[in-house]
Amino acid sequence: MDAIEQEIRLSFRYPVHFTSGVFSVSNPVLRDLLTPPAGGSRARALVVVDSGVDAAHPGLRAAIPAYFAAHPSSLSLAGAVVVLPGGEQVKNDPAHLETVVAAVHAAALCRHSYLVAVGGGAVLDVAGFAAATAHRGIRLIRVPTTVLAQDDSAVGVKNGINAFGQKNYLGTFAAPFAVVNDFDFLATLSDRDWRGGLSEAVKAGLIRDAAFFQLLETEAGALRNRDAAAMQRVVRRSAALHLQHIATSGDPFELGSSRPLDFGHWAAHRLEQLTGHAMRHGEAVAIGIALDSTYSRLAGFLPEPQWRRIVDVIGALGLAVYAPLLDDTLAAPDGPRSVLRGLAEFQEHLGGQLTIMMLEDIGRPFDVHDIRTDLMLQSIATLKRIDADGVGRAAQKAS
Amino acid sequence: MDAIEQEIRLSFRYPVHFTSGVFSVSNPVLRDLLTPPAGGSRARALVVVDSGVDAAHPGLRAAIPAYFAAHPSSLSLAGAVVVLPGGEQVKNDPAHLETVVAAVHAAALCRHSYLVAVGGGAVLDVAGFAAATAHRGIRLIRVPTTVLAQDDSAVGVKNGINAFGQKNYLGTFAAPFAVVNDFDFLATLSDRDWRGGLSEAVKAGLIRDAAFFQLLETEAGALRNRDAAAMQRVVRRSAALHLQHIATSGDPFELGSSRPLDFGHWAAHRLEQLTGHAMRHGEAVAIGIALDSTYSRLAGFLPEPQWRRIVDVIGALGLAVYAPLLDDTLAAPDGPRSVLRGLAEFQEHLGGQLTIMMLEDIGRPFDVHDIRTDLMLQSIATLKRIDADGVGRAAQKAS
Repeated sequence: MDAIEQEIRLSFRYPVHFTSGVFSVSNPVLRDLLTPPAGGSRARALVVVDSGVDAAHPGLRAAIPAYFAAHPSSLSLAGAVVVLPGGEQVKNDPAHLETVVAAVHAAALCRHSYLVAVGGGAVLDVAGFAAATAHRGIRLIRVPTTVLAQDDSAVGVKNGINAFGQKNYLGTFAAPFAVVNDFDFLATLSDRDWRGGLSEAVKAGLIRDAAFFQLLETEAGALRNRDAAAMQRVVRRSAALHLQHIATSGDPFELGSSRPLDFGHWAAHRLEQLTGHAMRHGEAVAIGIALDSTYSRLAGFLPEPQWRRIVDVIGALGLAVYAPLLDDTLAAPDGPRSVLRGLAEFQEHLGGQLTIMMLEDIGRPFDVHDIRTDLMLQSIATLKRIDADGVGRAAQKAS
Repeated sequence: MDAIEQEIRLSFRYPVHFTSGVFSVSNPVLRDLLTPPAGGSRARALVVVDSGVDAAHPGLRAAIPAYFAAHPSSLSLAGAVVVLPGGEQVKNDPAHLETVVAAVHAAALCRHSYLVAVGGGAVLDVAGFAAATAHRGIRLIRVPTTVLAQDDSAVGVKNGINAFGQKNYLGTFAAPFAVVNDFDFLATLSDRDWRGGLSEAVKAGLIRDAAFFQLLETEAGALRNRDAAAMQRVVRRSAALHLQHIATSGDPFELGSSRPLDFGHWAAHRLEQLTGHAMRHGEAVAIGIALDSTYSRLAGFLPEPQWRRIVDVIGALGLAVYAPLLDDTLAAPDGPRSVLRGLAEFQEHLGGQLTIMMLEDIGRPFDVHDIRTDLMLQSIATLKRIDADGVGRAAQKAS
């Protein structure tokens, strides 16, 4: 064969910081991260803020320029703070992506300048896609403000927007320059967003660390009662597990078919889509985890006591295992509103063979390549019964 | 410091094939490259073709489906051939990018499916950006059809479109799945495109391989007279040098400031932009190389005989070292039509400190961080004189 074989090796490093009061003048984390370019004296940065964060933290928009102004010899704010609408809707309209790209251009940011994105996962995804493609990549610092983003999505290497009604149809794999988890932002979250993000922590335990799953069982009451110290422990450990998984999976840019971090996500993405994103990602993931755990049990992979612990911990964290819109799937499994269509979309998005993660134990996942429709419908029916009875009691009954 | 340090290591491999008649049924290269996904029997592919290639090869649009039809057990054409306008204009209107993304979606391509892009560098850049972002990356097979794309741009890891009047403002670094250099496509190129691509070969010699530069001097007559065998040797060696450089530079995704592959390109990008892309990239690079080589000589970096060889080989290959629009720079160095504005745009695009490559010998480049306006204007004036006199004679006179 007349060919040259090319091989390119790359290595990306980034820190994930845990702090509070990131924009307090006395907090050195951002100042130390924002290193000036070679030959330049000051680091230039543009800041994007989630409208939900902006509303919950009225002082933030003044604190940001004040932080830069307090470090005039090393930092330079390259433009006015850009506010993007929070929540999944920001990923549905490409105009928001264009807003960020236009602001990056107007500020004449270069590849050694910084885009600092402050917000929930959706805003970070849009800002991250802009940062990854402007000049083929400027430096992105993520400041995630939700449990979900801090313990899961923002520590990873993905960005994206929705297109053709499909979640994350467009995006890239790109390592951030740094991630700064500021615990102060969690205090102002709604109960819904506080709890919702815990489903990704449950997932991290299920796919990687039985001891962490046990910690979630022990701390469930404290977490539901908004104990900040318990939440900080959980966010740190969940973030660390996600980082370890990405670094050691051997496939950080997902060229193969297996997706341990996507446990429960085929149904979750479909549920979000079917509700027009009225259901939050974390809430949908809780149901997706319950569904694939129940399938794992009904298929004989997962012993009953472990299955019961999973359904129970979801309930104990204040999350639902079922949503009424799943009734449509039971009524018409092939219908346009069936959650089962998510299997084909998941396969198309990931590529190759259908590969769905199931559990044989807590902390011990494995891949299957066929899903039995009858068993999946039975799983949905089981969760419907559990939900109707109240999760805790029902999990015992259904055994 | 309360932080987790993440490190991600990645490795990308791809072959660059040299062949002819890639869509002839008897040619196995594409069939062998298009491996089916795990668990699937057939590889699904969509093909994008440059309108210029389509016009020059009337049989191509029938040959493509015939090739897939001849391998029914392993290949599947997932949609009609998509024809994109050839030339830089395709990068100026984002509608063409959207056309490709929409076709990828309509064909339900997954990450393990293939986008086969056939054309010049501009069409490959648009198709490559679509492939890099749909599903966060589907498999891209580039079939470059011009000298420039075969010997330089298509073997690398970049894609992009123009925005805000800036070349490649949006794009990503992404390794292709494979590159197939089909020499048959070169036969139908205009003289302009045949010669234009040689400027990148000159660049490869200047920054990396004095022996290759000498080969270009020896073969210049044959190359200008469209000797196919000479061109194939040059394309192979230039492509190999570019691949080596990307693999061994230590910075394939350009996180630092130095850009050896961009020798002469600050002026080239600006010249393309100032002419509304009427000047081809290769033609602009020839002038850019002449300009920075002349600056290298006037600044005392590059000895006179080597400088003369550079200007002479550009002329001998049938390329110009000057364009009348550079008169505007001489008349108004700070004016809106000055090529010198390209320095600031180049710095912004690459990031960090201004870093321009200069030569101290053929095959021995080095970086400078300051450009003297007076010397650059003197360089432009020198090339104007050489151009007025006819390159060969003048290069001797100007010494």
